[in-house]
Amino acid sequence: MSVSSCTRIVLAARPHGAVRASDFRIETAPLAEPAEGEVQLQVRYLSLDPYMRGRMDERKSYAPPVALGSTMEGETAAQVIASRHPDYAVGDIVLARTGWCSHANVAARGLRKLDPALAPITTGLGVLGMPGFTAYSGLRFIGQPRTGETVVVAAASGPVGSLVGQWAQIQGARAVGIAGGADKCAHVRDELGFDAVVDHRAPDFPERLAQACPDGVDVYFENVGGAVWQAVLPLLNKYARVPVCGLVAQYDGATADGPNLLPATMREILSRSLTLRGFINFEFAEHFPDFLREVGEAVASGRVRYREDIVDGLENAPRAFMGMLKGANFGKLLVRVS
Amino acid sequence: MSVSSCTRIVLAARPHGAVRASDFRIETAPLAEPAEGEVQLQVRYLSLDPYMRGRMDERKSYAPPVALGSTMEGETAAQVIASRHPDYAVGDIVLARTGWCSHANVAARGLRKLDPALAPITTGLGVLGMPGFTAYSGLRFIGQPRTGETVVVAAASGPVGSLVGQWAQIQGARAVGIAGGADKCAHVRDELGFDAVVDHRAPDFPERLAQACPDGVDVYFENVGGAVWQAVLPLLNKYARVPVCGLVAQYDGATADGPNLLPATMREILSRSLTLRGFINFEFAEHFPDFLREVGEAVASGRVRYREDIVDGLENAPRAFMGMLKGANFGKLLVRVS
Repeated sequence: MSVSSCTRIVLAARPHGAVRASDFRIETAPLAEPAEGEVQLQVRYLSLDPYMRGRMDERKSYAPPVALGSTMEGETAAQVIASRHPDYAVGDIVLARTGWCSHANVAARGLRKLDPALAPITTGLGVLGMPGFTAYSGLRFIGQPRTGETVVVAAASGPVGSLVGQWAQIQGARAVGIAGGADKCAHVRDELGFDAVVDHRAPDFPERLAQACPDGVDVYFENVGGAVWQAVLPLLNKYARVPVCGLVAQYDGATADGPNLLPATMREILSRSLTLRGFINFEFAEHFPDFLREVGEAVASGRVRYREDIVDGLENAPRAFMGMLKGANFGKLLVRVS
Repeated sequence: MSVSSCTRIVLAARPHGAVRASDFRIETAPLAEPAEGEVQLQVRYLSLDPYMRGRMDERKSYAPPVALGSTMEGETAAQVIASRHPDYAVGDIVLARTGWCSHANVAARGLRKLDPALAPITTGLGVLGMPGFTAYSGLRFIGQPRTGETVVVAAASGPVGSLVGQWAQIQGARAVGIAGGADKCAHVRDELGFDAVVDHRAPDFPERLAQACPDGVDVYFENVGGAVWQAVLPLLNKYARVPVCGLVAQYDGATADGPNLLPATMREILSRSLTLRGFINFEFAEHFPDFLREVGEAVASGRVRYREDIVDGLENAPRAFMGMLKGANFGKLLVRVS
């Protein structure tokens, strides 16, 4: 049953420093009938992810920015409500890049169907989706932890960090998580089963991290940058690997204030033969089926655990997103749209 | 004919910032007869290399510092003048880590003989020695230039940079050198045959470098750091590789002054999926025989060229070394000791 209008959230202004509510605008727009080869989707869940902060800036990163007045980009789990493609039927659940909206027409090509019988459809946006694949591919192709090595990851209760630690353990490594606050730390230690966890809000965070890594750090999965990087750098062992998949601590107003930390960082890269490697999971897309099979089995068996933080209502997406950039979410952040 | 004393240059003081003549002291010391398993060597050539600057500081790098009052470390090409090891005869030429001295007793184990009939013995300290192997291994195992890619290297008239560019061309890549001053630039372009060369002293150096790299930079062989890195960073292509083997621009008094360049560097690492990888050639030692065969043939055939800058007299080593840190040498810097 197709609809003739949708609700969407557009980029109203480019942020200066921290994102504000006024950088977004919610609006209603007409929606045409789907064209040949398209499906019309009703969005069930919208995924909110740190990379979206980058798309709000003018500066080109690995992808072009969202245009002012355009719908905020994002991936969703959505249901087909009208179809003009033979492979898709009304009722099918698919992953799509509809952006922050209630309904959309999209080309059927490139959609991926989700089977609700195999796993909750929300996992397609988290542990069995792009965040999980970021963890998996960064470890498999860059971090390459070996038995007995120490792997450190921040945002350890989040969708990338939680799989980094658990998957590192499955490879035989020791997992040390960093998280903000007692609740998240308890979850990382007790529910996810990391070998150790350190609260980055502790005044003596660098010392605690050092204590949690008595044999140094062999893999640091970089998703935050900033002060956490400064605490990890002195602990990195010779030949340590640093997959860099995010820098959330510096998305909201990274500045060139303070001492110049680059010369000392370069010196450590040289003197300890470190590897820093930026990556976006798309690079390893051909291995997505491996990921889905391997991690899917581990999720189904309960060996890999995950947590979701679900906010109700599209209109609450901007607030939830702003909170996430400050670490307020607890688990994979999703918006239940309908 | 063994000797009973030697001349040596010791570390008299640890430098504060730029190295000064008073940081060194030349002295005469008694020399015992070689012990069983040792040879006594008369040093012919001492190699002066940027890494020695790091050994003068208290701070441990990949190797421990030179102790105050101890002989400055260094590799030499030396002649056996007395032997207590069956594999070495008087007159043999060997590579040894005797340090900055005229004579020394060293264990014969671990020495490498040089055949003066194959190549001038000085090449064992340069293009066919550690500097050459640094270029070769950094390209082969980290930079991995492909046909048509652009490889940039600074200090391009020096012993590492000159082979980086020539070896990259042999792999089918385009070589762009950076050097200081018209004479060095002419040498890099006309004698070494790089595809382009840029003078880092030019006021519009960043613009000239960009013009010399119209397709961006795929491999930047980092041996200097500082302002050159800042000029190269915006030119790096997606998936560019940066082997980091030295940071000579920041050895003499790297400071944390100026804006903090780390956040922007990390952002580029992430958004362009860059690889930065520190290394010391020892890591790849098992491939030294490959290097010696491959580059040895290319040197013998004249396909790879090199230039040496030879200073006479051990007493002039400190001055020559200080000059090298400022880029005053022109080619591989050696001291003819006897």
